[in-house]
Amino acid sequence: MVKAMEWQEAHPIFALAPTDWTNGAYYVGVSRAHQATKNPIFLAALKTMGYRNDWKPLYRTYHADDVAISYTYLYANSTRRNLVDLAPTKEFLDIHLFETNPWKDGTDKHAEKKILWWWCDALFMAPPVIVEYAKQTGEQKYLDAMHTYYKQTYDLLYDEEEHLFARDTRFQWGVNEKDLKEENGKKIFWARGNGWVLGGLALILSDMPEDYKNRDFYVDLYKEMAARIKSLQQADGLWRTSLLSPESFDHGEVSASGFYTFALAWGINNGILEKAEYTPSVTKAWQALMSCQHENGMVGWVQDIGASPEPATKDSWQNYGTGAFLLAGSELLKLQ
Amino acid sequence: MVKAMEWQEAHPIFALAPTDWTNGAYYVGVSRAHQATKNPIFLAALKTMGYRNDWKPLYRTYHADDVAISYTYLYANSTRRNLVDLAPTKEFLDIHLFETNPWKDGTDKHAEKKILWWWCDALFMAPPVIVEYAKQTGEQKYLDAMHTYYKQTYDLLYDEEEHLFARDTRFQWGVNEKDLKEENGKKIFWARGNGWVLGGLALILSDMPEDYKNRDFYVDLYKEMAARIKSLQQADGLWRTSLLSPESFDHGEVSASGFYTFALAWGINNGILEKAEYTPSVTKAWQALMSCQHENGMVGWVQDIGASPEPATKDSWQNYGTGAFLLAGSELLKLQ
Amino acid sequence: MVKAMEWQEAHPIFALAPTDWTNGAYYVGVSRAHQATKNPIFLAALKTMGYRNDWKPLYRTYHADDVAISYTYLYANSTRRNLVDLAPTKEFLDIHLFETNPWKDGTDKHAEKKILWWWCDALFMAPPVIVEYAKQTGEQKYLDAMHTYYKQTYDLLYDEEEHLFARDTRFQWGVNEKDLKEENGKKIFWARGNGWVLGGLALILSDMPEDYKNRDFYVDLYKEMAARIKSLQQADGLWRTSLLSPESFDHGEVSASGFYTFALAWGINNGILEKAEYTPSVTKAWQALMSCQHENGMVGWVQDIGASPEPATKDSWQNYGTGAFLLAGSELLKLQ
Repeated sequence: MVKAMEWQEAHPIFALAPTDWTNGAYYVGVSRAHQATKNPIFLAALKTMGYRNDWKPLYRTYHADDVAISYTYLYANSTRRNLVDLAPTKEFLDIHLFETNPWKDGTDKHAEKKILWWWCDALFMAPPVIVEYAKQTGEQKYLDAMHTYYKQTYDLLYDEEEHLFARDTRFQWGVNEKDLKEENGKKIFWARGNGWVLGGLALILSDMPEDYKNRDFYVDLYKEMAARIKSLQQADGLWRTSLLSPESFDHGEVSASGFYTFALAWGINNGILEKAEYTPSVTKAWQALMSCQHENGMVGWVQDIGASPEPATKDSWQNYGTGAFLLAGSELLKLQ
Repeated sequence: MVKAMEWQEAHPIFALAPTDWTNGAYYVGVSRAHQATKNPIFLAALKTMGYRNDWKPLYRTYHADDVAISYTYLYANSTRRNLVDLAPTKEFLDIHLFETNPWKDGTDKHAEKKILWWWCDALFMAPPVIVEYAKQTGEQKYLDAMHTYYKQTYDLLYDEEEHLFARDTRFQWGVNEKDLKEENGKKIFWARGNGWVLGGLALILSDMPEDYKNRDFYVDLYKEMAARIKSLQQADGLWRTSLLSPESFDHGEVSASGFYTFALAWGINNGILEKAEYTPSVTKAWQALMSCQHENGMVGWVQDIGASPEPATKDSWQNYGTGAFLLAGSELLKLQ
Repeated sequence: MVKAMEWQEAHPIFALAPTDWTNGAYYVGVSRAHQATKNPIFLAALKTMGYRNDWKPLYRTYHADDVAISYTYLYANSTRRNLVDLAPTKEFLDIHLFETNPWKDGTDKHAEKKILWWWCDALFMAPPVIVEYAKQTGEQKYLDAMHTYYKQTYDLLYDEEEHLFARDTRFQWGVNEKDLKEENGKKIFWARGNGWVLGGLALILSDMPEDYKNRDFYVDLYKEMAARIKSLQQADGLWRTSLLSPESFDHGEVSASGFYTFALAWGINNGILEKAEYTPSVTKAWQALMSCQHENGMVGWVQDIGASPEPATKDSWQNYGTGAFLLAGSELLKLQ
């Protein structure tokens, strides 16, 4: 895990800016790695990042992606007083949750962008930040707003039969001009997309008050998805980029597999999943994930930025893949 | 090439600021390495640099050196929309090309600084940026202005007999109080100075429209210099810091040799130089350049910042040396 | 030394901000390493740091810690004109030295914070910066102000019998409600605390004019402490975190030992300490310090941030430990 982080720090990458979702997901992994290990090497990295970015989210306040980085700011804030400026995060969340925008209004011109969190990735990007922010400030209105929007996405994109999320409405059947399907005739369920959701649920449940009125909704969804995801694991311990069509690109993909491994291990560690039932799956996955790491620390087999299943290679890497790897490792360490 | 870039990224260096010409030349190499390999490891590095510097050139708008870094901004701009802010580059170029200053006016107190680009290095620093800017904006007035100033420098510093550029008028004969000469009685032609010109010509011709009215001038100059440079290559495949006095410092120098290797290979790859005639020279040079790279990736044998021939050592490095190495490698990859 | 710096640069760390005292102490080591070796790899690192921080100290103008980083800015300024902006350093020093604040006034609510430099670490953080600033500007008023405050600290915290500094008044006997003592009944003298003082003295004397009227005070204090520190060295060549109770944490600690080694070697190199008497102590210490460096360059056995003796481990590192290591090495190189 240290080597993965060191390699990633030596190869900073982003799509739009260092505060975008790619780094957001990576530093969630760094944050949880520090929480699990207390190794200051992780804390040093995330503080350096936060300071350089003035503890600011990216600028598109309507876009869940742009606040993912604040998870790390909130984590840093829990380690030392007077270190982190949370004002930009608060400002972002207040606009994001409590002001209007074309996605919320349903006035955006794209058919699939009719709610605030219209793509399933968003459920990793914003909700864990909101839950943690509510925890640190004690203001429940953020939790309630989060739940409202989460439920909208759930109602729109969750497939009650498959127990998986469509990436967005373009991948649903019966709503578009033409139904998109895999060559085998099945629906397209994107591995990483569902990784965002399941990984996000573990993060949400980590910090949501035990007595929060809507907590059961998340626990139930988590359990239902966990069971399904477990059933889709392949013989090598990893998941394929197209969950229902593993033959499309028949090799393990690390970002999705890392998020799943993290989420399943978290469930075992927190008594939500049956230990005997899930542990073999998780330990097998972690062995396989480690075999995707190069000698120099680089985490390979990561699907590039996208919105649907595409192949990866031994040499394809992205910071969020390293983040998924660190998330998985941070829970594996706690597994007895 | 990846190792060279990784070592350089881990050892950031500059003379005046991270946006100065030293980094400018280095990141030209990183840009071309990405263009040639499509390896995202190069793109990640240059985007990180650009973002940290707010996509700004350095501040001396009269100085060609200070806009060299914009070559990389323009390259980054070609990879993704809404990533790069080109306004500071445009502002610099508009002042540089279309407003007055003491060098242009000939009012500077130094005898050698009487035209905008009064030293031959400038022909690498600004013209390729201008050509690329004209290409991306479609505004030919930049090309025309570039040609005007380029021609001034050519008229002032090009030695029609030797087919080499004097670094500046201080190194010309018959114009100063005393003629500077090497111990062997020959004129001083600085290897890196001519590397800037020849490497710059390859960059200019890469992006100048095929039908641009003055293109032949650059093609002819390029061919003439290429032939002369080839004739000055030493037995080990590398060039010496003093082109006509190789015995002064009798060891290969990597920045000049890298620029030459890049430029000659580019000519072969683009059908401007005779393949059979130039290929042996280029492959030999590349083998020799690779032998100057340390095990850890560091590119040694680079002459320090200067304006005339000085020695280098196995351990002397500079970012522009790494840039020259990457430029050479990026064309060698295309050589069949 | 290069490997120590490279590892540290790849693992940036700070407590409050990159311009805090932890980096301040580290880059003092980088500065002296460059001064001693002329290896541009050190200069490149410190220039990059200074540029990124806009050559600014941290913001608490009443706090000596926050100007420690300016030692490096002043060093960088000595290497090239027009590179460093010293205005923020001047502004800090003018407020720090010549304006009032609660510590100076004795109006702070904490009993131990009744003078400007109320803890002995401060004698490393600010005085060397002030001496160097006075040297570069030629303004003696800074030296005089420094001496006034230095003397206050000396009068308050120096133990005339032990020839060591109490970290602050909380560790003195007869002034607090209860005397703090080690299990062996002795006073608590913190190794790093005295390392700050002794290392600071070597820096001060390096740049204080030979004819400065108060110079003898510093030379005498330096010699007296040096003799005592030498007598407290343990058999393995290193010092323990509690100087009079080595059995408390019976292992070498690198930050204190590095500062001592630096200071003693400096005294030998500058003819202030008896060469024959001190050299064995210093060479033994350096061998032991090198054995605390990991294969990858990381300097271990560094006590964490604190104010009194605590243990370290093979794997505990901090940037100021690397700084102490570099300081020691930079003087060892000059030892014949």
